[in-house]
Amino acid sequence: MTTGTAFMSDYLEGVRSGVVDAVAASLPKGGPRSSLYDPLAEFLKRAGKSIRPALCIAACRAHGSTAEHALPSAVALELLHNAFLIHDDVEDGSVSRRGSPTMHAEHGVPIAINVGDGLAVLALQPLTQNIGVLGSAMHNRVMAEFGELLRMTVEGQAIELGWRHENVVDLTSVDYLEMVALKTCAYTTIYPLRIGALIGSWGRADLELVTRFGLYLGAAFQITDDLLNLTGTEELYGKEIGGDLAEGKRTLMVAHLLSTTRGTDREFLVDFLDGERKDRSKDEIERVRAMMDVHGSITYAERYTQALSEQAVSAFDQAFGELPDTSDRRFLSEAIEFVVSRNL
Amino acid sequence: MTTGTAFMSDYLEGVRSGVVDAVAASLPKGGPRSSLYDPLAEFLKRAGKSIRPALCIAACRAHGSTAEHALPSAVALELLHNAFLIHDDVEDGSVSRRGSPTMHAEHGVPIAINVGDGLAVLALQPLTQNIGVLGSAMHNRVMAEFGELLRMTVEGQAIELGWRHENVVDLTSVDYLEMVALKTCAYTTIYPLRIGALIGSWGRADLELVTRFGLYLGAAFQITDDLLNLTGTEELYGKEIGGDLAEGKRTLMVAHLLSTTRGTDREFLVDFLDGERKDRSKDEIERVRAMMDVHGSITYAERYTQALSEQAVSAFDQAFGELPDTSDRRFLSEAIEFVVSRNL
Repeated sequence: MTTGTAFMSDYLEGVRSGVVDAVAASLPKGGPRSSLYDPLAEFLKRAGKSIRPALCIAACRAHGSTAEHALPSAVALELLHNAFLIHDDVEDGSVSRRGSPTMHAEHGVPIAINVGDGLAVLALQPLTQNIGVLGSAMHNRVMAEFGELLRMTVEGQAIELGWRHENVVDLTSVDYLEMVALKTCAYTTIYPLRIGALIGSWGRADLELVTRFGLYLGAAFQITDDLLNLTGTEELYGKEIGGDLAEGKRTLMVAHLLSTTRGTDREFLVDFLDGERKDRSKDEIERVRAMMDVHGSITYAERYTQALSEQAVSAFDQAFGELPDTSDRRFLSEAIEFVVSRNL
Repeated sequence: MTTGTAFMSDYLEGVRSGVVDAVAASLPKGGPRSSLYDPLAEFLKRAGKSIRPALCIAACRAHGSTAEHALPSAVALELLHNAFLIHDDVEDGSVSRRGSPTMHAEHGVPIAINVGDGLAVLALQPLTQNIGVLGSAMHNRVMAEFGELLRMTVEGQAIELGWRHENVVDLTSVDYLEMVALKTCAYTTIYPLRIGALIGSWGRADLELVTRFGLYLGAAFQITDDLLNLTGTEELYGKEIGGDLAEGKRTLMVAHLLSTTRGTDREFLVDFLDGERKDRSKDEIERVRAMMDVHGSITYAERYTQALSEQAVSAFDQAFGELPDTSDRRFLSEAIEFVVSRNL
């Protein structure tokens, strides 16, 4: 039996190659190259972990079905994920992604927005394939899941953008969790798992239980990602370290800091979060980072993540615990430890 | 019998009220307000002409079916149209739309991109309704039409953005027409008409003939729109006059000017088109505008539009000529004169 990390890497790589092939096959051969399909294909080739397709396919197979039934949905999830990344990077003013410049940093904002739109449009193709693969009735149920996923993602993004736009500073961990449930968990964990379980069980799985597991898993994933943005290395992380602070992003650590600082420190922080990226100097970013150490914001987020992962273990048992002990069920179970202990 | 213009206005208004009601009913009651659904709803309320839903519903009813069968598709077309407008305005750096500031001018680029995404996501809802309204088989055919429409629109936008990004200056009227067929005609005329005819005839209409009519009608529409951008008044037009020149947009008039100017005039024009909006002074914009008069670019485009509208008349006869003489058929027929003679 392989060790935990090797098992997870092998499983992800097994899913990734199938998804990458299917994605590549779905790209148009003609059409505009330099301003659309070349940058789009290059972006897709950058190594992602394919965690979303893997969760979808694992949840499907854990219920005894085959990967083929979930593959079109998994491909659509991967395309939509990449569409969101490109638009998010424009919206956040991010400069690097997966070890390279973001799409808009390389090709300008106009082309980047349109490439993002193009990726979302390409996702319609595998979803249409579902009619043949799953039949009309199940296809319609899957489409309804995708509709919810997309609505929630856009709403979550709107909440976060609104916080920055209006410089909202009275945020609690509950506000943060509600935002992350919509912005990150919906398309990263909850709906990949729901769609996989729906297809794999042919509609018999209790999707509310799946949602709970996805929520804890996804929130743990996002907070870990945000912690790595503060404490990781660019080489492993693929994005600029401290970029979230430069962007004024409301992470759990920032929410914690807002609730614990007082007096001039808090005034400085509120002022720092206001305005635009270009207004935040390196010195100011380092001061906020140091404040987080003083006030224990990093430790707080690490403990919060630990509590989420414990909830995820219990939710996993309820959602998938009674299924046969397969490598797919093992992948879902070990995903919890994987997302919180990863160093990239 | 009402006169041409009054008939068209009445027909459009009749469609518009039904579509506006259906769109309003589809908006979520909850969710983030100030950073998503409030600006989204405000944008939808700005008076558009609803030409796309009207063409869809008219093509459906001209074939003897009822508006109800085409209404969900018409609503989806209107929502997607608004999504495109918001993203296009960001990509083009446009400042006014329908007599008010563009979405990004009012709420910033990040929120504008996300509101555009939100409108596209809302369009999934009426498309899902089509399952109940049309049954699975016809719903699937309609979805395939929407898939093509979206792909073509994104590709057309990519071509135009690529021309600007790479400062392409060897453009002919054929290049222009190919771009407009994808960028404008697909979602403005071709697919609204195709989807309406498909549903109304329950799959019996020859959609290739419909496509030809839509192509000529849509190209005439776009060139007329671009002419109004040079010669109209802001009050009637709803966008800044000369804005296309400020944006460096490759219109038919610019393509004509590129092919007719020589020497220092051409060098100035090529240099003018390069770079960004902020680099183009008012004086330079006026010089290009004057060059168009000298070289007859406006007259050329007006004659080109006239030729397109004559082709549209002939294509209309082939596509819809044998259908009964209803107000719906009349609307489609008079749409040609309407789009080329409008002064708003």
